[in-house]
Amino acid sequence: MSFLHDRLSIEKPIIQAGMAGGITTPELVSAIANTGALGTLGAGYMGASQLKEDIHKVKQLTDKPFAVNLFAVNLESYSNEIGNMQRFLNRFRNNLGIDAGADFVKVNDYLQEKIHVILEENIRVVSTAFGVLPASLVERLKENDVLLIGMATNLDEARELEESGYDAVVAQGYEAGGHRGTFDVGKYPNGSNIGLHVLLEEFLDHLEIPVVAAGGIHHKKQVDALLAMGAEAVQIGTRFLIAKEAGTNAAYRRALLKADTNSTKITKVFSGRPARAIRNKFVKEVEGSGLTPLPFPIQNQMTKDIRGAGKEFAIADMQSLWAGQGVGAIQEEETAVEIVESLTGNVNITEA
Amino acid sequence: MSFLHDRLSIEKPIIQAGMAGGITTPELVSAIANTGALGTLGAGYMGASQLKEDIHKVKQLTDKPFAVNLFAVNLESYSNEIGNMQRFLNRFRNNLGIDAGADFVKVNDYLQEKIHVILEENIRVVSTAFGVLPASLVERLKENDVLLIGMATNLDEARELEESGYDAVVAQGYEAGGHRGTFDVGKYPNGSNIGLHVLLEEFLDHLEIPVVAAGGIHHKKQVDALLAMGAEAVQIGTRFLIAKEAGTNAAYRRALLKADTNSTKITKVFSGRPARAIRNKFVKEVEGSGLTPLPFPIQNQMTKDIRGAGKEFAIADMQSLWAGQGVGAIQEEETAVEIVESLTGNVNITEA
Repeated sequence: MSFLHDRLSIEKPIIQAGMAGGITTPELVSAIANTGALGTLGAGYMGASQLKEDIHKVKQLTDKPFAVNLFAVNLESYSNEIGNMQRFLNRFRNNLGIDAGADFVKVNDYLQEKIHVILEENIRVVSTAFGVLPASLVERLKENDVLLIGMATNLDEARELEESGYDAVVAQGYEAGGHRGTFDVGKYPNGSNIGLHVLLEEFLDHLEIPVVAAGGIHHKKQVDALLAMGAEAVQIGTRFLIAKEAGTNAAYRRALLKADTNSTKITKVFSGRPARAIRNKFVKEVEGSGLTPLPFPIQNQMTKDIRGAGKEFAIADMQSLWAGQGVGAIQEEETAVEIVESLTGNVNITEA
Repeated sequence: MSFLHDRLSIEKPIIQAGMAGGITTPELVSAIANTGALGTLGAGYMGASQLKEDIHKVKQLTDKPFAVNLFAVNLESYSNEIGNMQRFLNRFRNNLGIDAGADFVKVNDYLQEKIHVILEENIRVVSTAFGVLPASLVERLKENDVLLIGMATNLDEARELEESGYDAVVAQGYEAGGHRGTFDVGKYPNGSNIGLHVLLEEFLDHLEIPVVAAGGIHHKKQVDALLAMGAEAVQIGTRFLIAKEAGTNAAYRRALLKADTNSTKITKVFSGRPARAIRNKFVKEVEGSGLTPLPFPIQNQMTKDIRGAGKEFAIADMQSLWAGQGVGAIQEEETAVEIVESLTGNVNITEA
């Protein structure tokens, strides 16, 4: 029936989104894997040794397969033309009592090393965002029987993934929390933002490979409807943010529980790439400054210490509170098992 | 089963959206009514005598019930502080060879007169956008057994409609073409923009009255999925724009057939209210001017002659090319009967 079942014996048509930044703890990923759904280590900004460590921890907690999520772009970058934004951000640093920002920014990339770890550790699924992995890496992964899932925000991107040998495509609707997966942010500065039920239908009509639905999904009725339309699975981010096993900090959790359906917006202030987050003081003030965020990942690196202090000091206003539009329906913390059950009932892929 | 069937003997769970501006010809409305779906005269900017005339024409072509769509706001307005925008718009007028704009704008409102016509003509359904009709009008309509359907873009608006005595709510998703129905554009300057499958689920979870799904719907699989989620009907705009019976002009039709899923955006340049249209030269240049559109309906009145010339001279670049995100899937002109059949197959409400 489903590629997830046939290739990986996954029982539940649920993929946990590969949220980066400490959310996807080994406890979360393994708890989801143990329900029969597909858990994902969000390894976007991670170094290779951290990834290896996390993989080992997950393996201690489950013998089910799980995915590793990567950014399919080269993060390597450097800039010393950051003055105006850095000066503006120093106001926040000053209020937080942390050091002023440097006058240059450097970001390292560990993609090759992480691919090495993934192959060494015999990981069965790699999912990617922001583009298509280089052909040489796609080839290496496929030679090693790794299933490749790519995220797309429009049909051109989806076709590119299909033609590059990806095994499945995630249709990321406008409703989704966190970064827009849009490949070319030059062409779509605010992201390619198509409502999920239009995007899903378009992908189903034009692609040969399986399609996974993502964005704003929080209720079993939505899951049933999307699977009935032809999606092979759904990808869930926001609801797992509030899972008891997730690495989400307390201030962020409170913001998620408080948010309503209109609390989020797509903004570039945190990373330089359009991403959906709960509106807070940081969003309001940086957008209100009239300054243009630096390109990804420069802006991301520049705001990292501020966001880190926001977490440490439990200040939601100084964090990137990624969330999808489904956040309004989330009323309580639950375990990963409870979340998967509430979304699928007792239905397994093979019975669906 | 359905309020449309029980109250009006409507057989198909399809409501044709009340598109204003000459689209909803009596031929279109009656053809849709004769399929067993609910046709709608878009009477937003219409005068009362025009409405009466159109109603008479529809009645000559069908004995089925049909709806009249109104704006639930007072259009009456006047402004003589329009100089910068008017001067900018004069460039377009100059290119089109039409007269320069006046230095003031006046808009008349005919809502009371249209309500009078509606009651006189024994119209069975009134649908509204942009707010809630004044309590006195709601009362008069309900005393006369008129079914009231209001459009909402968030839960607060939907609750306001429900509490005011409306009989059903249309959940207008972010994907929808034309004007955002958002009540308070001071609070939501670009509209309240929630993806349909999130908005529908939220309305179903919190409202007692029936919910109609709208926005980006163009395919039977979507209709089936939305009805299965609990929508009582779906509202369709864009696909009916291209119906052979619609009043859509030839240049607009060509633009609809050419557009893809990413061709539209939400913009205030045509009317001063956020609305989804196909990007064209007018959108690009007015947005690029840095000038803020005047409030609705002043901006609408100011651009009216330009849009009129665009229609007359078959210039798509000078028209408001309203369209939803489903426009990418529209490949050919069809009759209203073909459109309703392709969306519902042979399924009637009572069998659904």
